[in-house]
Amino acid sequence: MTDLSATTGVTDRPSGTTRSAGPDPVRRFLDEHAPQTPCLVVDLATVRSRYRQLRAALPDARICYAVKANPAPEVVGELVALGSAFDVASPGEIDLCLAEGADPASISYGNTIKKPRDIARAHEQGVRLFATDSAADLAAIAECAPGAAVFCRVLVDNEGSRTPFGRKFGCAPESAAQLLVRARELGLDPYGVSFHIGSQQLDPNAWEHGIAAAGRVFADCARAGAPLRMVDLGGGLPAAYTEDTPRTEDYVLAIERALQREFGADRPELLIEPGRYIAGDAGVLRSEVVLVSEAGDGAGRWVYLDIGRYNGLAETEGEAIAYRLRTARDDDPTGPVVIAGPTCDGDDVLYQRTRYELPVTLRSGDWVDLLSAGAYTASYSSVGFNGFTPLPTYCVDGEQR
Amino acid sequence: MTDLSATTGVTDRPSGTTRSAGPDPVRRFLDEHAPQTPCLVVDLATVRSRYRQLRAALPDARICYAVKANPAPEVVGELVALGSAFDVASPGEIDLCLAEGADPASISYGNTIKKPRDIARAHEQGVRLFATDSAADLAAIAECAPGAAVFCRVLVDNEGSRTPFGRKFGCAPESAAQLLVRARELGLDPYGVSFHIGSQQLDPNAWEHGIAAAGRVFADCARAGAPLRMVDLGGGLPAAYTEDTPRTEDYVLAIERALQREFGADRPELLIEPGRYIAGDAGVLRSEVVLVSEAGDGAGRWVYLDIGRYNGLAETEGEAIAYRLRTARDDDPTGPVVIAGPTCDGDDVLYQRTRYELPVTLRSGDWVDLLSAGAYTASYSSVGFNGFTPLPTYCVDGEQR
Repeated sequence: MTDLSATTGVTDRPSGTTRSAGPDPVRRFLDEHAPQTPCLVVDLATVRSRYRQLRAALPDARICYAVKANPAPEVVGELVALGSAFDVASPGEIDLCLAEGADPASISYGNTIKKPRDIARAHEQGVRLFATDSAADLAAIAECAPGAAVFCRVLVDNEGSRTPFGRKFGCAPESAAQLLVRARELGLDPYGVSFHIGSQQLDPNAWEHGIAAAGRVFADCARAGAPLRMVDLGGGLPAAYTEDTPRTEDYVLAIERALQREFGADRPELLIEPGRYIAGDAGVLRSEVVLVSEAGDGAGRWVYLDIGRYNGLAETEGEAIAYRLRTARDDDPTGPVVIAGPTCDGDDVLYQRTRYELPVTLRSGDWVDLLSAGAYTASYSSVGFNGFTPLPTYCVDGEQR
Repeated sequence: MTDLSATTGVTDRPSGTTRSAGPDPVRRFLDEHAPQTPCLVVDLATVRSRYRQLRAALPDARICYAVKANPAPEVVGELVALGSAFDVASPGEIDLCLAEGADPASISYGNTIKKPRDIARAHEQGVRLFATDSAADLAAIAECAPGAAVFCRVLVDNEGSRTPFGRKFGCAPESAAQLLVRARELGLDPYGVSFHIGSQQLDPNAWEHGIAAAGRVFADCARAGAPLRMVDLGGGLPAAYTEDTPRTEDYVLAIERALQREFGADRPELLIEPGRYIAGDAGVLRSEVVLVSEAGDGAGRWVYLDIGRYNGLAETEGEAIAYRLRTARDDDPTGPVVIAGPTCDGDDVLYQRTRYELPVTLRSGDWVDLLSAGAYTASYSSVGFNGFTPLPTYCVDGEQR
């Protein structure tokens, strides 16, 4: 068994979860415990409320939490308790879910890139649902997980996404139908179709193309005697960064409209794979100002934090994700800044083109909080680039269940 | 003390270093031990020969190994034994060097972004040399490391570098002179000037501008009664990737010419900070083919490896570094491929624009070696993104001392 405790950034944490009631339990934890920075604090109450919100909005969808977004054992454990299912990318994530009490039948092995021995291992552990998008991977599933259910990922347009997927995953709808028909011939259960419209998707209508593509694959497979039953809506629901985002209801409305148009009364089973949506707003990343300086080239004020691209803020690459910031001096006048990380790497600059203002009084030793930083941060952290340790995660619980 | 043993990716390694003689000790280690992939294998004999080569080419320069390039304790220990000095970026790297027996007087704290308490801690540990490029950092050094020697980093053109530094570090030569004069007023020792012409620099003449800028700062400081003594040539010397690189002698010749032109008979003390040059060619990264598939969009063959951008190949971002590859089927006919990593992240594609060919017979389970992968790989590795564990490092020693 892979020990994920050392690989999820959950280190140095106080034993057990801190429970407290009140309006901002994360802020209270930070004030009371003053943990060494940088660190991530996750409020499990927000994880719960996000799960329930989506549960209520899409009551018949199977919610598969995308573990990669935040693999802290406490987050996974909380979702197990709520009855969530899980989308996993690797043997390590399967082990983590099982260790937290997940039913193997609730696990979807969503990575289309899998070693045959990892498929076999998952199958031995009881995993029965696998994503695929190529003949080679499908053959490996048939060989190593006989009889398993499979769904095929189709390639759709990622426009509108802050972090699009490019062309690495998914096949054309015609190829998907061929693969699913082949799956049936190989003794597998051709279960359905998945698509991913990119993470942090700001356009609720983005799901339309994917649902339409799924409809075409359903029709082709039905004609070929391999009827499908499931549509996996993937991820894409947003967290609250600096940009405005549509409401959950707007997304669901657009998805329901597209489902109605494509499938009418023959509504398929639904899967959805929220990751950022569940974990993003639950986390606050506390950092410390290392240095405030005037740039050598006379280009203004630079604020260097003890958090950067290599110890947790990987998603600032290309300035894709612009976190909201909070400081203790937010009542003071502000001025424009470039924000950078602490390493000797020239690429470790967080925001240079994106306009940020910070208090003109900000100085070395002050804290800066990055809000909604619960997803895709701690687990991206490097093991020790430039000698800086990985980002630790602390969990608090802001309210009674 | 920060325990770097868990953060440098040096895990699961056989106790002690494997010693063997012969033409390719890394290949022999891989054949004999068949370690689980992906993994990095570093030959300490190459580290030694690279150090000695540079020592012979620049006999009067103080060689400060840039620890960030490969912080494996064995590599640092080998360089301590050879009499190397060290360029460090953080308290963690200082602890590592001291743990391997380095004299604190051999350590240069080369990061211009430092917490005041980290400066104080380094000073208590005996570190006496600090880089700076801003008034705020200089004031912190004067306060926390009284009497220390300082050098100021100037901003120079990075053209010709595969991984340029941008504008994060360094100040204009006039500002540098002001800072160094101020250093003297603050009771510090104004020691010299540094510059960095970017990593993997392919133009031997790139050092010219930096040496000329250093000359201007020397002249300004001498006029102001704060004479300087040292020029830090930074990094930039290359490793052997797919592109042709000039020979070490060509670099040294160009550097010597520029020094002669700028300083004549008043040759300053020299520092140089090789990282990639020392560690790059010493390492081989062994990976396994997870999957070979035809792309969903009909765009050809994709080869997915179990190593990618998030577990060691961070420098493939933007396809900046193109590693040489080796497989067991290199005698077979080859065809074009896209090469990608194992995670569910759409950005985890290594080479899509850079033309690579691999054997048409390559299949799942085959190994693929990435050559000259000893620098900026293992320590960049994420703690557990997508549930994949960090890249372990094994060290071998290919020849007698």
